[in-house]
Amino acid sequence: MTLYGEQGFDRTTVAEIAERAGLTERTFFRHFSDKREVLFAGAQALQELLVTTVVNAPYSSTPLEAVALALVAAGDMFGERREFSMQRQRIIDGSAELQERELIKLASLASALAGALRQRGVPDPAAALSGEVAIAIFKISFERWVATPEPSDLAQVIRDSIEQLKVIAA
Amino acid sequence: MTLYGEQGFDRTTVAEIAERAGLTERTFFRHFSDKREVLFAGAQALQELLVTTVVNAPYSSTPLEAVALALVAAGDMFGERREFSMQRQRIIDGSAELQERELIKLASLASALAGALRQRGVPDPAAALSGEVAIAIFKISFERWVATPEPSDLAQVIRDSIEQLKVIAA
Repeated sequence: MTLYGEQGFDRTTVAEIAERAGLTERTFFRHFSDKREVLFAGAQALQELLVTTVVNAPYSSTPLEAVALALVAAGDMFGERREFSMQRQRIIDGSAELQERELIKLASLASALAGALRQRGVPDPAAALSGEVAIAIFKISFERWVATPEPSDLAQVIRDSIEQLKVIAA
Repeated sequence: MTLYGEQGFDRTTVAEIAERAGLTERTFFRHFSDKREVLFAGAQALQELLVTTVVNAPYSSTPLEAVALALVAAGDMFGERREFSMQRQRIIDGSAELQERELIKLASLASALAGALRQRGVPDPAAALSGEVAIAIFKISFERWVATPEPSDLAQVIRDSIEQLKVIAA
């Protein structure tokens, strides 16, 4: 990612990334399907955290409460990596291909959250809608968090956005 | 689009599309930046309908009421084209590149709705969040509508999803 920051995503080759990481290109492609994936290496861990938190939320939790717990847990995970997240966002904002990949990853997270809610017995369309709305909240909160010059707590920004959703839908 | 349905999106060339439409390739590229855009030719009209409806919503409308009017108007627009919409969705579902393009278009619509709400004096983050949530509702409603075997009214599916949102956020 340092290379993407230094010389731009488009101008960085897989050969250069592999060299910097002390890998062969072949090893690189064992880990990543293309050079975009480097920036989304944490997506699987994030998805597992979201799904596990929803599945294990208290029995009495509503769908929104269950996804709120998951989003706050994700906020805590990213919260410690603000500098990294800001640098990564600048790279993504500079490339249409990367923005597309990010949207695909977010859509997968929405589906995974919906699947976790169905495991809790939440029927559709409530499950599908809650998954999409949760990711909308995450996206907006994350954008606000990386755009604010002074450091802030992502988990708190997420809680504020959930309160905002309640006001909007009231 | 008929060609995409007949022989698949990946196997259809711009030359074939242009020939079927009685155009030269050069004329094709004056209208579309690439062959994916053919399937999103209505996106600009949809965006204008959404923005105009939000901007012209009654003064007393809440952000959710304003975007609800816009989504229902969009539902009425698509509602008359169910067969077309179903065929188009099958083509998009069969191609990762097309799904990416669709997500980019939906993200642009969310931004446009947020911009229209800001014109009405809605502050952020409420404007940004309402835009994203509106598109989440549209996406889920559209998916349900094209997936249901018996014909139904898209505008009504959208109204039901908005009611569902209120229940989820209550």
